[in-house]
Amino acid sequence: MSDLLEKFIMENKNRMFEELSYFCSIPTTSSEGSIHFNKCENFLVQYLNKLGFEVKFLPTPGKKMIYAKLQGQQDRSLLFYNHYDVVNPGLISQWDTPPFEPTLIGDKLFGRGTSDHKGSLLARIHAVEGLLNVERRLQLTTKFLIEAEEEEGSPHLRQVVLDNRSLLQAEACFYPGWRRDEQDRPRVNAGSRGSFVVRVSCRTAAKNLHEAYAPLVPNPLTRIVQAISTLFTKGQDVAIRGFFDDIYIDNLMEKALENIPFDPSFYQQELGVSQLLGEMNREVAVRRNLIQPTILVFSLKASSEQKDILANEAEAWLRFQLVPDQNPDKIFWLFQKHLHDNGFSDLEAFIVGPIIKPSRTPIDSSIIKTVLKSGEKVYGCQPILVPVSSGSGPKDIFVQELGIPTVADVGVGYSKSNDHGPNEHIRLNDYWLNIQHIAEIIRTF
Amino acid sequence: MSDLLEKFIMENKNRMFEELSYFCSIPTTSSEGSIHFNKCENFLVQYLNKLGFEVKFLPTPGKKMIYAKLQGQQDRSLLFYNHYDVVNPGLISQWDTPPFEPTLIGDKLFGRGTSDHKGSLLARIHAVEGLLNVERRLQLTTKFLIEAEEEEGSPHLRQVVLDNRSLLQAEACFYPGWRRDEQDRPRVNAGSRGSFVVRVSCRTAAKNLHEAYAPLVPNPLTRIVQAISTLFTKGQDVAIRGFFDDIYIDNLMEKALENIPFDPSFYQQELGVSQLLGEMNREVAVRRNLIQPTILVFSLKASSEQKDILANEAEAWLRFQLVPDQNPDKIFWLFQKHLHDNGFSDLEAFIVGPIIKPSRTPIDSSIIKTVLKSGEKVYGCQPILVPVSSGSGPKDIFVQELGIPTVADVGVGYSKSNDHGPNEHIRLNDYWLNIQHIAEIIRTF
Repeated sequence: MSDLLEKFIMENKNRMFEELSYFCSIPTTSSEGSIHFNKCENFLVQYLNKLGFEVKFLPTPGKKMIYAKLQGQQDRSLLFYNHYDVVNPGLISQWDTPPFEPTLIGDKLFGRGTSDHKGSLLARIHAVEGLLNVERRLQLTTKFLIEAEEEEGSPHLRQVVLDNRSLLQAEACFYPGWRRDEQDRPRVNAGSRGSFVVRVSCRTAAKNLHEAYAPLVPNPLTRIVQAISTLFTKGQDVAIRGFFDDIYIDNLMEKALENIPFDPSFYQQELGVSQLLGEMNREVAVRRNLIQPTILVFSLKASSEQKDILANEAEAWLRFQLVPDQNPDKIFWLFQKHLHDNGFSDLEAFIVGPIIKPSRTPIDSSIIKTVLKSGEKVYGCQPILVPVSSGSGPKDIFVQELGIPTVADVGVGYSKSNDHGPNEHIRLNDYWLNIQHIAEIIRTF
Repeated sequence: MSDLLEKFIMENKNRMFEELSYFCSIPTTSSEGSIHFNKCENFLVQYLNKLGFEVKFLPTPGKKMIYAKLQGQQDRSLLFYNHYDVVNPGLISQWDTPPFEPTLIGDKLFGRGTSDHKGSLLARIHAVEGLLNVERRLQLTTKFLIEAEEEEGSPHLRQVVLDNRSLLQAEACFYPGWRRDEQDRPRVNAGSRGSFVVRVSCRTAAKNLHEAYAPLVPNPLTRIVQAISTLFTKGQDVAIRGFFDDIYIDNLMEKALENIPFDPSFYQQELGVSQLLGEMNREVAVRRNLIQPTILVFSLKASSEQKDILANEAEAWLRFQLVPDQNPDKIFWLFQKHLHDNGFSDLEAFIVGPIIKPSRTPIDSSIIKTVLKSGEKVYGCQPILVPVSSGSGPKDIFVQELGIPTVADVGVGYSKSNDHGPNEHIRLNDYWLNIQHIAEIIRTF
């Protein structure tokens, strides 16, 4: 098969490159109008129709989603969850090429969305096209769910999934993600972090006061600082009682962790980090990075930040990063209890925004095995299996609501793709390899 | 004397009111051009010349200062330090009358500068005028030092004072300040807080990182929070070793403290403060408010404040509020030692901006006695003597560099004057009383 597929890719490279460039040239950012979204949608629907997919729209209170299904020899299905919206390019002056004029420099294609996620989405479609060309029809039934609000936090995804359980049912699901690590090792993620944001606030007076009151009236910012400080040990481990209780690491995960590399020089040279939390060795670093939950304090604000004013209100913003088997509700309850037990009952705490549950796909599941095996065949090396990805996204919708084993990070990017940043790009060779990988997965799952 | 002076005031009220209105109508804010400053300066110089003062300019790298001297029967001198710049009016929409069109409503004169400090400055000049009118010549030699950069932190005052020691030499000095408290009791401040601002910073990586690094790379904001937290007890007392060691309260100060009222309902109703630091009783509250130093944490910032970013840098801004006999250099050294001893040597701390030393004028000094006695005569009640004012200003320049006993808060304002805020105003009756008080001080010191 792979020779024939390679031949197909070789013969269609120019056309597929043109399609990719066109697809990425459409500015589907949240600040642009619907005309661009319609254009992008038309492109996808026409393409999928041409390949024989049965396409329908799933309405939402926001932008509608595309659902597409191609019946295979078997009823067993593979679901690809994708999105075609992209984040705003930010400061154009930081880009070396126009973000929506995809530009090839050497083997690299620069442009917003080339990596996150238009490139990976089109590679999946191109893979289906290649397979159909080589084998006439698919073994496996293949489904696409494509939304246009992922970069806004997928506000309607959960409801759409719940409303369309039977349409979306599948034996496995693929989630977006970049792909190759700092040393070009392909990566596969089995689990995903959960997260939620908490706002903690304190108010001590009716209005901001002259600094002269500072010795007499409590400073809400100091109080917040004192409360936040109790959440951590000196080494920045979370000190909330019971916080780590429900985490379960089985033998298979332990084994997977053993095979994950760690490169201290990356932290020292690339990131400029001289001191890691915990000890600077492979085992500790890998475990912390992948299976340790934490709380990220990302903002502290006061109602006045002038030197001669005592603020009357202050607030802290915390991002809880959970790992599989932690329950967000229970963790938030433990946090509130911690505040209470440490004498901070006067502080108010609320969850702001969505709660993303952590999710876990067994690493001995058939889809993971298929991804690893086919990856080894295409890339010539064993992909790295990451039991829990270090990022988070609403993968829990598929894993927990639909009960589908879900895999991420099988995409076209690499460690320098700079998703969400300036000069986002991919290496074209990764694109052709990804087509082969996806085709191999559909063929052999 | 006082009958004659009252008569003079009565006969000249309209003219003096016009002068005050004109003086306050000139927008001498830092955002206005020099034309207004020249106008204000001319008004002052002509007035002082007319009264017989010998006037000269003291150059600075910024706005020049006015020095004026009127030789009295005696060589003993009284120095009035004043300023004619005002703070910007801020949001005009918050004013009920135009800030630079002084407007009389009932007995209240609204306008920027009426209280801080043009009103008090002109009242001092009007007092000299009245005395001259009643007694032909002054007993005491009277000096004015008038600057135009006080609201910018008096960046050139220290140098001018040092360069003109002999010109400025005096037996006592008057510093600007408002005057009557919430219950209309005249106030006199003998001492003044010192202050300086410290920036504490922490850097853990070369750039902001994806939140995924949070379990592995130290969060500089968390580290700052942990460090700041060690500075305080639960009750927000400063926990730095040695911080309170040099404070000296003598019997006279203790006695003065006993006479200072405390009104819990003011805190509860006016300020909306339900819980004070320390116990809610007069003695504790008065001592904390007036003779307790503290550290005001007024800002914490991170290089990113997005929920999905781990910042690489964070900083805290602290205002140290000192009381007499504390040495800023020593206190800063104790603070740095505290960081070091508590395991925060990785944090950097710098003093930003000027250091204002605390200052103390003995409360049994002749000038304080004169102010109290003459105040009782004019106002019909014993003024409240505050051993250390709760605000701070560079009074230390006069007290420490020149060694002159210095008194503050003898001005035309009252508790609702709202210096620096919208609708700044004075009550005209306070203006006439202040003229009498100043005249009585010059006559009897």
